[in-house]
Amino acid sequence: MTAKYAQLQAFVSEHSDKFVADLMDWLRIPSIGTDPAHDGDVRRSAEWLRDRFEALGCPVVEIWPTAGQPAVYAEWCSAPGAPTVLVYGHHDVQPVDPLDEWTSPPFDPVVVATEHGARLLGRGAIDDKGQVAFHLLGLAAHLAAVDLDGSTPVHPAVNLKFLIEGEEESGSPHFSELLRANSERLTCDVVLVSDTGMYARETPSICVGMRGLVNGEFELRTAQVDLHSGSFGGAVPNPAHVAARIIAGLHDESGRVRIPSFYEGVREPDASERELMAKLPFDEAEYLRTTTTKILVGEAGWSTLERTWVRPTAEINGILSGYAGTGHKTIVPSSALVKFSFRLVPGQEPPAIAAAFRKWLGEQVPTGVDVSLRFFGDGVRPCLTPLDHPVLQAVVRALTTVFDSEVLFTREGGSGPEADLAEILAVPVVFLGVGLPDDRIHAPNEKAEIPLLLKGAEAVALLWADLGGTS
Amino acid sequence: MTAKYAQLQAFVSEHSDKFVADLMDWLRIPSIGTDPAHDGDVRRSAEWLRDRFEALGCPVVEIWPTAGQPAVYAEWCSAPGAPTVLVYGHHDVQPVDPLDEWTSPPFDPVVVATEHGARLLGRGAIDDKGQVAFHLLGLAAHLAAVDLDGSTPVHPAVNLKFLIEGEEESGSPHFSELLRANSERLTCDVVLVSDTGMYARETPSICVGMRGLVNGEFELRTAQVDLHSGSFGGAVPNPAHVAARIIAGLHDESGRVRIPSFYEGVREPDASERELMAKLPFDEAEYLRTTTTKILVGEAGWSTLERTWVRPTAEINGILSGYAGTGHKTIVPSSALVKFSFRLVPGQEPPAIAAAFRKWLGEQVPTGVDVSLRFFGDGVRPCLTPLDHPVLQAVVRALTTVFDSEVLFTREGGSGPEADLAEILAVPVVFLGVGLPDDRIHAPNEKAEIPLLLKGAEAVALLWADLGGTS
Repeated sequence: MTAKYAQLQAFVSEHSDKFVADLMDWLRIPSIGTDPAHDGDVRRSAEWLRDRFEALGCPVVEIWPTAGQPAVYAEWCSAPGAPTVLVYGHHDVQPVDPLDEWTSPPFDPVVVATEHGARLLGRGAIDDKGQVAFHLLGLAAHLAAVDLDGSTPVHPAVNLKFLIEGEEESGSPHFSELLRANSERLTCDVVLVSDTGMYARETPSICVGMRGLVNGEFELRTAQVDLHSGSFGGAVPNPAHVAARIIAGLHDESGRVRIPSFYEGVREPDASERELMAKLPFDEAEYLRTTTTKILVGEAGWSTLERTWVRPTAEINGILSGYAGTGHKTIVPSSALVKFSFRLVPGQEPPAIAAAFRKWLGEQVPTGVDVSLRFFGDGVRPCLTPLDHPVLQAVVRALTTVFDSEVLFTREGGSGPEADLAEILAVPVVFLGVGLPDDRIHAPNEKAEIPLLLKGAEAVALLWADLGGTS
Repeated sequence: MTAKYAQLQAFVSEHSDKFVADLMDWLRIPSIGTDPAHDGDVRRSAEWLRDRFEALGCPVVEIWPTAGQPAVYAEWCSAPGAPTVLVYGHHDVQPVDPLDEWTSPPFDPVVVATEHGARLLGRGAIDDKGQVAFHLLGLAAHLAAVDLDGSTPVHPAVNLKFLIEGEEESGSPHFSELLRANSERLTCDVVLVSDTGMYARETPSICVGMRGLVNGEFELRTAQVDLHSGSFGGAVPNPAHVAARIIAGLHDESGRVRIPSFYEGVREPDASERELMAKLPFDEAEYLRTTTTKILVGEAGWSTLERTWVRPTAEINGILSGYAGTGHKTIVPSSALVKFSFRLVPGQEPPAIAAAFRKWLGEQVPTGVDVSLRFFGDGVRPCLTPLDHPVLQAVVRALTTVFDSEVLFTREGGSGPEADLAEILAVPVVFLGVGLPDDRIHAPNEKAEIPLLLKGAEAVALLWADLGGTS
């Protein structure tokens, strides 16, 4: 351990009680962004955070209103020539239902002792106030180290921008608008997202890829009205049968998507990446408990993690045809509506996948059946942090130091606002999160492991020094 | 033409004005059985009919209440040794929406002249008051002929029972109950249904078969909750895909149902029956206009009429899986609901078809997917009037006489209360109806061709004499 890291650890340790007390203050503000009754609380939450950035000496701190809930923006760009990092997080929290399953009130956080150290219980403890809070502590620790080095005036060794939104738990409905409206001010070299977790307590890891998305719906129509299945059944086309044949034809027997050119350009993980993924401990029984399914299925030749992380999919999200209410109606339906989504992986482009599907679908629909196809938006590009990206490498070094353990790579099967960040700001996204799979985000008794939050603070302090060349 | 038939024609002709005037009175009663606002009208309609049977001298006339609308029952069984015929019809009528498409008020019937003779316009003109009314006139004509023969007391040469229900347009919800409760009084040798039509104006025809029915629904379940298609898509089973594969596997490429033993026992029409069906003029363009479809499809090797009349089918009536509302929800659904119906033909028994489907379905559902299957009721047996049945032969003779034309045989693709009659009373059902395909039943401007109603009256008068051995 270097002397500098020892000093950093000491700083974080000395400030840990204050850190937890401050975070508990923040957690007491019930900033449920989806509930208009809490609009005032979301505002208060934003103000709380603004005050903390100001207290750290951050020269630019603003509350950014949106058509929904406000975001907090802080900027400290005093290191010409150093990289600029935009940190993303959110200060809104999930609703708390079912309330009676909480062992303590969701907005009256408590600290309990466990075999792994102190644990903080409360809504937002890890998702995402706890992880935003470790950035505040990490920045303070970094500034203390800069101060010890004797630099004046004291400022971060990198250029930092923080964008902490207030609508993530609502699906970030105004986020892309906000990014586009402020894209010049948000210019950066990389986005650091702290809103995720590690693979497991003993497995520090970094997410390095998210699947993209193309989704839409098509309607098959064979008649203007439903027809009596007695009078006409057997002689007229049935759109439910046609839809079924199309859907059944989406995959071959090995689970591969049969749309021509669907896999064209797909960047398959190389042997070393697959080896790294295979290193991640995978508990199938636990996974089945999570999915509430009895089996796992998918494309032959790939593991469950690979199937959800690095392989593209074609999935039917909904079907409605004919009569589906109580009892029966002996009709030949006149139409069938099918909702579908494709998850894309690096190498696949949404427009190309949309075009390939349109072509294939057109070929599947028999004469005499009308089809109308529409896509929902332009799709989301898959993203992949280049494994040799210097910021990713710096995050690996930071986490390796604080966890004293090999750091593995994971992926995410889908993407949220991260995709907007990557797409609109046109920079790589790197993840640094210290949540655990059992943190019960979105559920009663959400918790954060305080030692992990402190490691998060250490990691970002190391990261800023590393990227600023002052480590 | 025999002298007796000439006398009959003269009687019908002399009474035709009175017949039309009476029928118009009845049509002015808006007996819409499905609309509680018209309960009093349905009652009045039943009373009107009761009075007419009584005026004819019918010894037993009753109004039979049900949990819904009342039926009228009349009985004149004074011919020991002669067959007993139960005549079925209904006195309730369809609603009249859209009202603004009627060229004259639906319950203010009018007679208009056409190239084919006088036409009666009004709700119920043919479905079914007009056809019940021709039975009243036919019975009067028959009694006049009996009187001319000098028999005393004057009574029908056959034993007649009339059951004219009041809920046919509501799907006869209490009809089977009524039949079971009165099965002894309704004992008969044959049921004569007068609620259908002929194939075409120039093609007098008799329906000799109705397809049966087995229907139900099955639900496939793969998880307890819908799953995020990003996080889990590609690794968990999708019940919409499973449902699609099952439905796609229901038929082979030639349109045949692939359920083993489905066709076991099916009595195929012989060459002469197929020749008779092929004789029926079939206008594909007109059929497509009726179905509003662009194409006709079905089992290879059979004509459209055969596909709907003499071939069994497997039809999906509805599917619901996942999200089918507006916009999108990127989920892997947790369940899929599928509604199905099989139309059965002579030789197929509902319990055997249900069992064959249950077995086949069980084999299609992959491990890890839960399936629950339920059938709606016990199904409906297909029925077929034996072509050599003496009453059918008598109806053929009667229609051949009154139309002076070859009488062809048709079938119906489904069945309504007729199936209950055949099943519960355990007798053959024979059809005698004079509606035309363009009579616009259930639609605005319903009409009846008065010359055809008069031919209906002649036909039943001939039929009673024929069956009673007095022709």
